[in-house]
Amino acid sequence: MNSNYYAVIMAGGIGSRFWPVSTQKFPKQFHDMMGTGQSLIQRTFERINELVPTNNILIATNTAYEKLVLQQLPQLNNKQLLLEPTMRNTAPCILYAALKIYNQDPNAVMLVAPSDHWIKDESEFLRNIKTSFEACANNDILMTLGIQPDHPNTGYGYIQFEKNSSEIKKVKNFTEKPNLEVAKEFLNSGDYLWNAGIFVWSAKSIINAFKKHLPEMVDVLDDGKNVYNTDFEDDFINSNYKKCENISIDFGIMERANNVHVLPVDFGWNDLGTWGSLYGKLKKDENENAVVGANVIFRDSKGNMVRTDSGKRVVIQGLEDFIVVEKKDVILICPRKDDQYIKQIMAEAKESFGKKYV
Amino acid sequence: MNSNYYAVIMAGGIGSRFWPVSTQKFPKQFHDMMGTGQSLIQRTFERINELVPTNNILIATNTAYEKLVLQQLPQLNNKQLLLEPTMRNTAPCILYAALKIYNQDPNAVMLVAPSDHWIKDESEFLRNIKTSFEACANNDILMTLGIQPDHPNTGYGYIQFEKNSSEIKKVKNFTEKPNLEVAKEFLNSGDYLWNAGIFVWSAKSIINAFKKHLPEMVDVLDDGKNVYNTDFEDDFINSNYKKCENISIDFGIMERANNVHVLPVDFGWNDLGTWGSLYGKLKKDENENAVVGANVIFRDSKGNMVRTDSGKRVVIQGLEDFIVVEKKDVILICPRKDDQYIKQIMAEAKESFGKKYV
Repeated sequence: MNSNYYAVIMAGGIGSRFWPVSTQKFPKQFHDMMGTGQSLIQRTFERINELVPTNNILIATNTAYEKLVLQQLPQLNNKQLLLEPTMRNTAPCILYAALKIYNQDPNAVMLVAPSDHWIKDESEFLRNIKTSFEACANNDILMTLGIQPDHPNTGYGYIQFEKNSSEIKKVKNFTEKPNLEVAKEFLNSGDYLWNAGIFVWSAKSIINAFKKHLPEMVDVLDDGKNVYNTDFEDDFINSNYKKCENISIDFGIMERANNVHVLPVDFGWNDLGTWGSLYGKLKKDENENAVVGANVIFRDSKGNMVRTDSGKRVVIQGLEDFIVVEKKDVILICPRKDDQYIKQIMAEAKESFGKKYV
Repeated sequence: MNSNYYAVIMAGGIGSRFWPVSTQKFPKQFHDMMGTGQSLIQRTFERINELVPTNNILIATNTAYEKLVLQQLPQLNNKQLLLEPTMRNTAPCILYAALKIYNQDPNAVMLVAPSDHWIKDESEFLRNIKTSFEACANNDILMTLGIQPDHPNTGYGYIQFEKNSSEIKKVKNFTEKPNLEVAKEFLNSGDYLWNAGIFVWSAKSIINAFKKHLPEMVDVLDDGKNVYNTDFEDDFINSNYKKCENISIDFGIMERANNVHVLPVDFGWNDLGTWGSLYGKLKKDENENAVVGANVIFRDSKGNMVRTDSGKRVVIQGLEDFIVVEKKDVILICPRKDDQYIKQIMAEAKESFGKKYV
């Protein structure tokens, strides 16, 4: 393993579209959503750890999740946690990580990856990351992985690239979630990829990009350059992090920089963004029913997903295309096609059931 | 209250059509099925106790339910329990009760009533029972209450009576569950009533009827006439009850005797035989959703019944005409129209989940 390789796993989200399993106190990435025996963050860590040394993997998360991270990833030491004292979008956290890593190793190349995505072909993923690491070690470029789209998804952002013969393409354009018609055009054009939020760059290049495009943020966090990786880091971050602008890396850096490149990849990817997308990736029986953590009798039922805590017994008669989720004190029964209402449902649940349940 | 008035509450059933709430270990009659704060047997006891002195109310049940009965009806003493050591249909148990009551009071009149039915107008019910008690005190007749039918139900037995001007009619005929066409004819004819399994007679008259129509059973149980209401009663029953024929009071006595009369009644009755019939009697919201023991958010949903243990939180989105029942380790989701499959479902559950759950 190359000791210059670093990774930042982004684990600060609250996964509210997976209520009632995912809650503010115990979000999605810490759950075994696929029924594999590992939580999503454990799976992500293990995957990345094939290429990046254990000590070089940082976890960016909210202070509230410190204990959860250390419980689930006991191989980490405290210094590997980037604890955000305030909720901020991705840019400040990535700059914080880059400065900390650069302080440790000025030649570092780093991967930034979400903690809660599904990746089918892990070897292919690792090959792609290695290709990107090598490119970024030798070039002042910012790289993103672009997923080869297989359907006109309107829930993802798209990346347009310049067609050429090289493996790594220059990015022309980022587009936020398109409507269906536009998404279809993108798919047909052949030069659009899905933005999976997986980035690779050298610590030096991303810091330079921040200096150019978000200099105020560098002013705030670079003051700490002598405190990173010391006992003073936490105090410094606690005092200053909140001063950072609440902006995403996509909007703050990627859409502004002109050295952004993309590696088109096709390792089988899903952001596990909704119950419906999770259902899509689960193993099904002959009637397209999927089960996680339950003992289910299906009768005259198809296309359902059933998940319970602690192996509850469930009988489903005459039900089609529903999500049935049970978590301790809460049961949710919702058509798969209505999974976009989950956030709204969660808000109603907060109102009716109380904060404790969301 | 008249000290000659006695009652036998029949509480030996296992209510298997109410799985998973009703189980062999804890059947329907011991559950608060209506969400009133009382179990069905508690409600039945209280209703009858308005007319029959506490000490004159006997509970006929299986030995397995002795503890449950005494927990739920602590006002009873052990002598008021008729514990069937073996599962038998209704005739032996009613003879046992009649002999025990006759031993105590040769002038007794007695009501026999199920423990698990729903009765709307309790005062009307009590008026009807009083009328029947008085008729049976003065005449050697066997009486049954006949419910005025309001729809052609194919799940009930019917009683045909002789039209005449008296309040109490002579019974012509008993008919088991008819098909829909026949049930419609019955309804139109105006001389058919539903058989609710509610009987009134004097202890003397019913014993005489047994002597005539089921003499072998009298031979078995009347041997014990000197042991009833003594410390030897239990041993006697434990040794002899199993020798009794497994036959119902309807088939063994009512359909054979020629002194059977019926009082047509209309107090609002339901046998709570299935989840669907229970749903029919529960309070509904404006979308015809009914809830027992749960805190439910309904969204775009109607005609559902939701019941949980201990006030679970439930969100139901886009569901119509379903039964959703949760009990500790089991969840059942089943269309209301499919509630006739519950017995079958229970058998499958026994197979898949184990005996513990049924």
